[in-house]
Amino acid sequence: MKPVLKKVGALVFDVFGTVVDWRSSLIAEGRKLGRKKRLRVDWAAFADAWRAGYAPAMDRVRRGDLPWTTIDVLHRMILDELLARFGISNLSEEEKDGFNLAWHRLKPWPDAVRGLTRLKKKFVIATLSNGNVALLTHMAKRAGLPWDCIFSGELFHHYKPDREVYLGAARLLGLQAHELMMVAAHKNDLDAAAAAGLRTAFVQRPLEFGDPAKKDVKPEIRFDLNVRDFGDLAQKLGA
Amino acid sequence: MKPVLKKVGALVFDVFGTVVDWRSSLIAEGRKLGRKKRLRVDWAAFADAWRAGYAPAMDRVRRGDLPWTTIDVLHRMILDELLARFGISNLSEEEKDGFNLAWHRLKPWPDAVRGLTRLKKKFVIATLSNGNVALLTHMAKRAGLPWDCIFSGELFHHYKPDREVYLGAARLLGLQAHELMMVAAHKNDLDAAAAAGLRTAFVQRPLEFGDPAKKDVKPEIRFDLNVRDFGDLAQKLGA
Repeated sequence: MKPVLKKVGALVFDVFGTVVDWRSSLIAEGRKLGRKKRLRVDWAAFADAWRAGYAPAMDRVRRGDLPWTTIDVLHRMILDELLARFGISNLSEEEKDGFNLAWHRLKPWPDAVRGLTRLKKKFVIATLSNGNVALLTHMAKRAGLPWDCIFSGELFHHYKPDREVYLGAARLLGLQAHELMMVAAHKNDLDAAAAAGLRTAFVQRPLEFGDPAKKDVKPEIRFDLNVRDFGDLAQKLGA
Repeated sequence: MKPVLKKVGALVFDVFGTVVDWRSSLIAEGRKLGRKKRLRVDWAAFADAWRAGYAPAMDRVRRGDLPWTTIDVLHRMILDELLARFGISNLSEEEKDGFNLAWHRLKPWPDAVRGLTRLKKKFVIATLSNGNVALLTHMAKRAGLPWDCIFSGELFHHYKPDREVYLGAARLLGLQAHELMMVAAHKNDLDAAAAAGLRTAFVQRPLEFGDPAKKDVKPEIRFDLNVRDFGDLAQKLGA
């Protein structure tokens, strides 16, 4: 193990895309709803559009156009736009809310639970996601994700990649930034974590967007670790 | 089950005294240190004084004499006073820090892990303690306490029984106050939770202060539930 990694005491994980496969989970939820409500919708396109709406929605909060807003509420705002755009008009309020909670039911990547269970024996493991606390808690309970703590941008009223989120997690764990490692499948998240002083591990997740050609999985020497999956991460961290 | 309890979706737990036996844990840690450093100290009196220093220390923060301060730091301030008062002068800085972390190593009451494991199947279970997040996380990991989330006054920069702590936990879980139940062995904690709109469960814990005569364990009709231990709580909540 690299010497600088010997001081790492806790790992914080990006969740959407890194721990859970949001895209195929949403597609499956869409298809299920579609069968029930007799909808003809391209659910892969719907899932991609729902996810794509998320960064612009956070930017509205960052610019001050919206007050602090949880991801549950942002997801619902985006959903309402997409229902109109995809011509879906026969959902009750309860059905819309239920579909919005699909984000609480996302399925983990196949290696996630086993890898986290292994890592948990050696490290404190926590989420560090823009998902709100309730979402992350429900997801973990349902999927059996064995987190020690649930950390969210919600605790700091900042979204990643704002620096406050990374430093906030270190502060809550009583650690220096360099004693904390950010694990993510997204390079911008890791670059922001590194700028705040954290160690970084890049996880490939080539299927995040369905087609591997759509995902940049190239290892980068600037990250402390580049790994295939959580089993590989545990191996490289001696866990 | 009482009808009002059917809407409860999550339980939040006081920790010191309710989940863990702080007093006998601190006494055991003190005796261990005493053997190593050849100290003659009444460790029961020491433990009681350490705990007794905690409310006045929080009040110094509430009054604004101190900025926001974690319990780890307050415990250390109290420890430094007690070392002088008990005439203990042969501890290194590292030994003082190690002893202060005895609060991270408190042992659960015998029914706690099994009762929480049972309750977790039906409810979201979380800490709601004045202990800081790092303390509660280390304690849970060591003792096997299966929390879904770690909530602390630290997240809200308020200590219990300030109203902000109870309402903050409900907000993070996406619940109305009446959908959340506070579980505690201390009546003032439950009265403050009830005033914020939460449901309440009183747990007896007659041995918290060693001598059962020192603990008020009388059931009170104003609490939604009065229970002997976490097994009894699980039973009464149908978990």
